[in-house]
Amino acid sequence: MTVKTASLHLSTRGNADILDVTEQIRRTVAESGVKNGAVTVFTPSSTSALTTIEYEGGALNDLRRLFDEIIPVDQDYAHNARWDDGNGHSHIRSALLGASLSVPFVNGRLTLGTWQQIIFIDFDNRPRQREVILQIIGD
Amino acid sequence: MTVKTASLHLSTRGNADILDVTEQIRRTVAESGVKNGAVTVFTPSSTSALTTIEYEGGALNDLRRLFDEIIPVDQDYAHNARWDDGNGHSHIRSALLGASLSVPFVNGRLTLGTWQQIIFIDFDNRPRQREVILQIIGD
Amino acid sequence: MTVKTASLHLSTRGNADILDVTEQIRRTVAESGVKNGAVTVFTPSSTSALTTIEYEGGALNDLRRLFDEIIPVDQDYAHNARWDDGNGHSHIRSALLGASLSVPFVNGRLTLGTWQQIIFIDFDNRPRQREVILQIIGD
Repeated sequence: MTVKTASLHLSTRGNADILDVTEQIRRTVAESGVKNGAVTVFTPSSTSALTTIEYEGGALNDLRRLFDEIIPVDQDYAHNARWDDGNGHSHIRSALLGASLSVPFVNGRLTLGTWQQIIFIDFDNRPRQREVILQIIGD
Repeated sequence: MTVKTASLHLSTRGNADILDVTEQIRRTVAESGVKNGAVTVFTPSSTSALTTIEYEGGALNDLRRLFDEIIPVDQDYAHNARWDDGNGHSHIRSALLGASLSVPFVNGRLTLGTWQQIIFIDFDNRPRQREVILQIIGD
Repeated sequence: MTVKTASLHLSTRGNADILDVTEQIRRTVAESGVKNGAVTVFTPSSTSALTTIEYEGGALNDLRRLFDEIIPVDQDYAHNARWDDGNGHSHIRSALLGASLSVPFVNGRLTLGTWQQIIFIDFDNRPRQREVILQIIGD
């Protein structure tokens, strides 16, 4: 059994920019030499989140629309009233969607579905440089 | 320390069909021989999801209603416009609720609450045969 | 590689009371002697949930408002009609937000962002004594 930590470095445009990080995670797991285990994917940020989806433009637009509907950008936020940074919606969207995701792998391969990709969403209101933590545990 | 992988095979009716998978996971963990650790439950699909709830008909109906309200079936989806498969809502519901869940166990027993069950929700718009991955890590 | 289990004991006021549990988790991980791994944080309850957020009053109020908007307290719930305990909304909010969170740590330190805290939300409609499970796996 072993633990290996790696990280991804991402450049985003913010504003619900959605990045497909599947290939980078797949490669990191394959190159770790760990055969069977789980990778914990974690974003060390309170204005971004992780989930899985079929990475095609239609579904991505639909997901962005959901957040525009239930947590609109143009609404009063107590966070903005205090800090005046205009990203109150970013915090609430991120808290709802979640910062961590755990994906099992077997024989060095992620157990994702055929049409399932791992995505990083940057909900902040400006472009950001982001780090995503990958913690691989297995043997 | 050891890693054991198993899977559940489920038949669903689709359309937000909710299955209680607690007993199968409980048995898989107990039979694994691993005493203390965590089980990662993962659905390798972009139209289904996992969470916990009190598995009683009222709460299940209330959960289905929530998704009907915030991510309605009868709405225009960019996914449907492109692929014409009518399951745009299934993708967005699944991305929001999430594909993975991690449950600790101690002395071979899941640390679930008394009224807490692990559920699999099939958001697709037709009956499906599903596999759910269980990755047990511990000693 | 080792597994260590601990738990937090919390007193809440219920009604979407939000507790910052970061410091207790940080200390538990540091004192475990495990250097690198992941901590699975799990609430064994169907009326509470876990996530991360910037723990400041504005964002906390905004998060509570989100749940008041999409899963209102004053609405008919099938759960309440059956059980008459008035916490139908608590179950649905908890199922949506989720019971588990996995946080990697490196050299004994959680990989949280600077402005990111781990929170426990008690969605039940009355004060509660709560236990949160921490399962630390690593070496």
